[in-house]
Amino acid sequence: MVSKNQKKLIKSLYQKKYRKQHGLFVAEGKKVINELLEEGLKLHTLFTTKDIFDIDLAHKYIITEEELKQISFLTTPQMALAVFYIPHSSGIEDNGLVLVLDDIRDPGNLGTMIRLCDWFGVKDLVCSMQTVDCYNPKVIQATMGSITRVNINYTDLKDFLATKTKDIKVYGTFMEGKSVYEEKLPKNAIVIMGNEANGISEDVQNLIDNRITIPQFGTNQKTESLNVATATAIVLSEFKRS
Amino acid sequence: MVSKNQKKLIKSLYQKKYRKQHGLFVAEGKKVINELLEEGLKLHTLFTTKDIFDIDLAHKYIITEEELKQISFLTTPQMALAVFYIPHSSGIEDNGLVLVLDDIRDPGNLGTMIRLCDWFGVKDLVCSMQTVDCYNPKVIQATMGSITRVNINYTDLKDFLATKTKDIKVYGTFMEGKSVYEEKLPKNAIVIMGNEANGISEDVQNLIDNRITIPQFGTNQKTESLNVATATAIVLSEFKRS
Repeated sequence: MVSKNQKKLIKSLYQKKYRKQHGLFVAEGKKVINELLEEGLKLHTLFTTKDIFDIDLAHKYIITEEELKQISFLTTPQMALAVFYIPHSSGIEDNGLVLVLDDIRDPGNLGTMIRLCDWFGVKDLVCSMQTVDCYNPKVIQATMGSITRVNINYTDLKDFLATKTKDIKVYGTFMEGKSVYEEKLPKNAIVIMGNEANGISEDVQNLIDNRITIPQFGTNQKTESLNVATATAIVLSEFKRS
Repeated sequence: MVSKNQKKLIKSLYQKKYRKQHGLFVAEGKKVINELLEEGLKLHTLFTTKDIFDIDLAHKYIITEEELKQISFLTTPQMALAVFYIPHSSGIEDNGLVLVLDDIRDPGNLGTMIRLCDWFGVKDLVCSMQTVDCYNPKVIQATMGSITRVNINYTDLKDFLATKTKDIKVYGTFMEGKSVYEEKLPKNAIVIMGNEANGISEDVQNLIDNRITIPQFGTNQKTESLNVATATAIVLSEFKRS
C-alpha cells in the first residue's frame, strides 16, 4: 500500500523546490532503477507491482497496478517507481573536455546531452542556474542511468569561467563562427552550448575565446538551425575524434 | 466556424490510413504553415484565430480560440491549423548521399532526421514500410518545414537495395563495426540506420557492404547506445566533412 504521506511526498517531487528541500528524486522502470542501484545511489523507498528487486523489506512496498498509476509520472507506468537520495556532486575538474550549458530548458535535450557526455567520456557537465533541473523526472527517464556517470554542477557561468585554469580555452557554438571541421581542437577545453531559442547569453559570450559553427551543407537558406542536442552530438564527436 | 464535416475530416487525419485515403495532412502554427506555403505546397483549408495569412477566402476560416482547441493536435494550440495536400515524391536518385531508415518508430526521431537531411544537403530519404509516417502530425511539427526540402519515399528496402546503381556502396551502422572516424567515406553512398530497439533487420543486414560504428569514449561498459537520431547526426557529419 502507498500511504497518504508517501503519495504526497512523491507528488511533491515533480517540483524542483521540493526535490531540493527533501534531497530526493524519482526514477521509474526496472531498467533505470536497477542501473541507479548498481551505481550505488542511496534508495529511499521502492514501490513495485512485482517483487523482483533484491532490496530489504524496510524500503520495499509491493503495490497494485492501480496504486502505481496513482503515483507514476509516466503515461504508461513501468512496473516500479523508486525514490532516491540526490547524490552530492564533486567539484569541477577542468581537465579533459567540460561541457557547459547556458540555459537549456527542454528536459529531453538535457537528458540526451547527459547521455552524450557519458558516451564521449565527458566527466564534467556545468549548467547555468536557469538550466532545467537534471533530477526532473523527464530528464531522469531520458538519461537511462547515464546521470550517475556524469558529474553535474549548477553554478553561475560567469563565476565558473572567471575561475577556470588559465590555459584552458573556451569554445562557444554559434550560427556564425569558424568551421568545427577545420579548427584544430584541443583535448582539454570548455565547450559552451546555448539556449534553444536565444543561443549563448551576451554576458557569457564575452568570456569565449573561440567561436565555432557546424557548417550547413544544404543550399536552402531557410533551413532551421540544428536542434541543440543534435549539435552537441556533432561538436563532442569533433573534439573527441581529433 | 468549423463545420461538423470539417471537424470529422481533421480528426481523421490523425490516422495514417485516412491521410492516405484523403491525400491530406495537418500542420499547425504560423511558422510551419508559412514555410509549407512558401515551398508551394497546395493548401486544402486553413483555420486561424487571426487573419494574418494572405490566402483567398475560399480556403480560409477565421475561428475562435475555443474552436481551434477542438481541432488542434497540440496541447497548446498555436493560432492556426492548416490542411495540406500530400505532395508526390520524386523518384530516388542514388547519387550523393542517400539516408535509409529501417523501421524508425518514434515520430520525434524521424522529424529530427528529416531536419538533419535538410541541414546536410541529403536530398533523398528512403524509409521502410514500417517506418513511422512522415505526415504524422508529430513529425510535421518536429521537422519545422524541412519536410518540403527532402524527397521522402516509403518502399521495401530489399527491393530498393537490389535495384541501386552497382558501384554505390551501402553502409550500415552497428554497435560493432569499423570506426566511422577511420573509414574513408565516399561522396556517393547509401547509409542505413536501424530501428530504435532492434537495429537493422537481418534481411537488410545481408545487403550491407560496410559495417560502421561510432566509437565510445567513455570507459563505462553500461553506457546505453546513442539515440538513433543523435547517431545519425554524427554519421552524416562524418560523411559530409570528409
